[in-house]
Amino acid sequence: MNKVEEFNEYRAKMNDKIVGSNNKILKRIFNLDTNAFAEGSVDKKTKEMIGLSSSMVLRCDDCVRYHLGKCFELGVTEEQVFEVFSIANLIGGTIVIPHLRRAVEYWEYLKENGND
Amino acid sequence: MNKVEEFNEYRAKMNDKIVGSNNKILKRIFNLDTNAFAEGSVDKKTKEMIGLSSSMVLRCDDCVRYHLGKCFELGVTEEQVFEVFSIANLIGGTIVIPHLRRAVEYWEYLKENGND
Amino acid sequence: MNKVEEFNEYRAKMNDKIVGSNNKILKRIFNLDTNAFAEGSVDKKTKEMIGLSSSMVLRCDDCVRYHLGKCFELGVTEEQVFEVFSIANLIGGTIVIPHLRRAVEYWEYLKENGND
Amino acid sequence: MNKVEEFNEYRAKMNDKIVGSNNKILKRIFNLDTNAFAEGSVDKKTKEMIGLSSSMVLRCDDCVRYHLGKCFELGVTEEQVFEVFSIANLIGGTIVIPHLRRAVEYWEYLKENGND
Amino acid sequence: MNKVEEFNEYRAKMNDKIVGSNNKILKRIFNLDTNAFAEGSVDKKTKEMIGLSSSMVLRCDDCVRYHLGKCFELGVTEEQVFEVFSIANLIGGTIVIPHLRRAVEYWEYLKENGND
Amino acid sequence: MNKVEEFNEYRAKMNDKIVGSNNKILKRIFNLDTNAFAEGSVDKKTKEMIGLSSSMVLRCDDCVRYHLGKCFELGVTEEQVFEVFSIANLIGGTIVIPHLRRAVEYWEYLKENGND
Repeated sequence: MNKVEEFNEYRAKMNDKIVGSNNKILKRIFNLDTNAFAEGSVDKKTKEMIGLSSSMVLRCDDCVRYHLGKCFELGVTEEQVFEVFSIANLIGGTIVIPHLRRAVEYWEYLKENGND
Repeated sequence: MNKVEEFNEYRAKMNDKIVGSNNKILKRIFNLDTNAFAEGSVDKKTKEMIGLSSSMVLRCDDCVRYHLGKCFELGVTEEQVFEVFSIANLIGGTIVIPHLRRAVEYWEYLKENGND
Repeated sequence: MNKVEEFNEYRAKMNDKIVGSNNKILKRIFNLDTNAFAEGSVDKKTKEMIGLSSSMVLRCDDCVRYHLGKCFELGVTEEQVFEVFSIANLIGGTIVIPHLRRAVEYWEYLKENGND
Repeated sequence: MNKVEEFNEYRAKMNDKIVGSNNKILKRIFNLDTNAFAEGSVDKKTKEMIGLSSSMVLRCDDCVRYHLGKCFELGVTEEQVFEVFSIANLIGGTIVIPHLRRAVEYWEYLKENGND
Repeated sequence: MNKVEEFNEYRAKMNDKIVGSNNKILKRIFNLDTNAFAEGSVDKKTKEMIGLSSSMVLRCDDCVRYHLGKCFELGVTEEQVFEVFSIANLIGGTIVIPHLRRAVEYWEYLKENGND
Repeated sequence: MNKVEEFNEYRAKMNDKIVGSNNKILKRIFNLDTNAFAEGSVDKKTKEMIGLSSSMVLRCDDCVRYHLGKCFELGVTEEQVFEVFSIANLIGGTIVIPHLRRAVEYWEYLKENGND
């Protein structure tokens, strides 16, 4: 199992447990998450780039990986991904760099393995 | 002088002082800021929406105002702005809501007065 | 109009605009907010103290004011409020102190004027 | 050695080194930590739920684990723990979800192994 | 009353209320604050520059003002202050810039009025 | 390969990839990083202590490790390092403690292995 599959599997397994619990608030938050990134007056690609940058400035590796995977699926180019990285690192500062390193590494895994 | 002019004037005045100082690092950071949001393989509109969301999740009112002004100038529609708001509030949580309130207010000023 | 009324009025006015917009995600987030703090297996008083501390460590003055108002309404005592403050300041550090100062000031307004 | 023991052991070992150093400020911060969560006009259970939510919105896995362990010891129920999770995820946003996943996993370890 | 006096007076008034309350944890946190910045194996000037940068990356205007006042008192030069600013803005990113603008403005007040 | 070498190697490998990409903004941010910590009117030792504290309050383990390595190289004493830790933990709160534990552990690796 490669790094991308590992990430996706753990994520899916734990999400199932959370959504399978009796807590309605958590279920609805997960539901909103799906809706917010659906095609709208802002297209999906742009939304995923927005999600990527917002996750990066907040320095959440797992969130960055998730949105990178979606960007990859939707055909965002490497040059575009790096432009989003550059905005996130400028706004968020050099404190973001360790997350950038791990994001660049994950992007390589995606190129090798796809997002399945 | 309306709220938008007030904001832009203070911002410009203080930026001039900072760039006018002898500190090269600060000058270069300001310079990078201009370059990062220039047209690239990601277009300017998308970059400003990315900047808006990233500023909102980091809860910086002035940064939100700045990018809102740019979005307004570039013709991002109200519906699109609200979609960006919704992503930022979902990712960043309800702690972002007070900033959303002030952003919605500022958007109204922009519609009344433009961004000059 | 006193400080508490001023805060509550601006908050209500802008919330109405946001909920009155066509954005479903934002409406649902506002709706969730009401539900999450309703009586459950954790009682409302405890939930408001949790909301107060979480807002304080995230350093959001408006959120602190809102939960302080709710704590006041529900009869959380001053001694209890200060114990919540102390936990938030210990976890969040001295960077929280300016928000503590404004929270203590707002608590005094609540004692003088109530939360209406 | 299970995951809970591993966590507690590393935590204890490093805390001993820190408290054993000559730095008075650090010693006192550790001491305050013990006092802040002692029974007071707010009871210990509530304080641990406050600690749990505050740690979760600040997205600190180790702090979440520590307070989860304490909640478990004090008999906070699973339903209550999930209500605290839901408040933290609503206030802190979906950026908190990866920490929620790891918290849910740790809660399962606690149920299997206890907090010793 | 100038801006510096205004800031110092509000700060002192609210600190007195907090320290005058019955909450021991808060009193001890305030006490620690005084001790941590006292002369040690790291000198006071350096400690205040550390406090300034840490406050700036955490984006707390009041904390920045306080440490700027102390830097001014201790004879940290303008060139040095700007070097600390540049490190904080690089580490913390352009999201720090609005706080930099207000810090530069406050530094000018200090030069005009001193820190009394 | 010890922990310090492991850290430095991964860091160097990924930095090379980032600087080797075609993104000018990212290259310039890396360049600024080198310049900001060079000897200036604030000396290098002080700058590294500033970088250490700023990284610690922002709770970035990798950034803390990097600046700890630099402090070690420049001869900052253990007592001084712990004073910087104490300021960072006071300002940033107990949420910083898990990062302190890992920092203390890394400092021991540096003492055993140096920073090469």
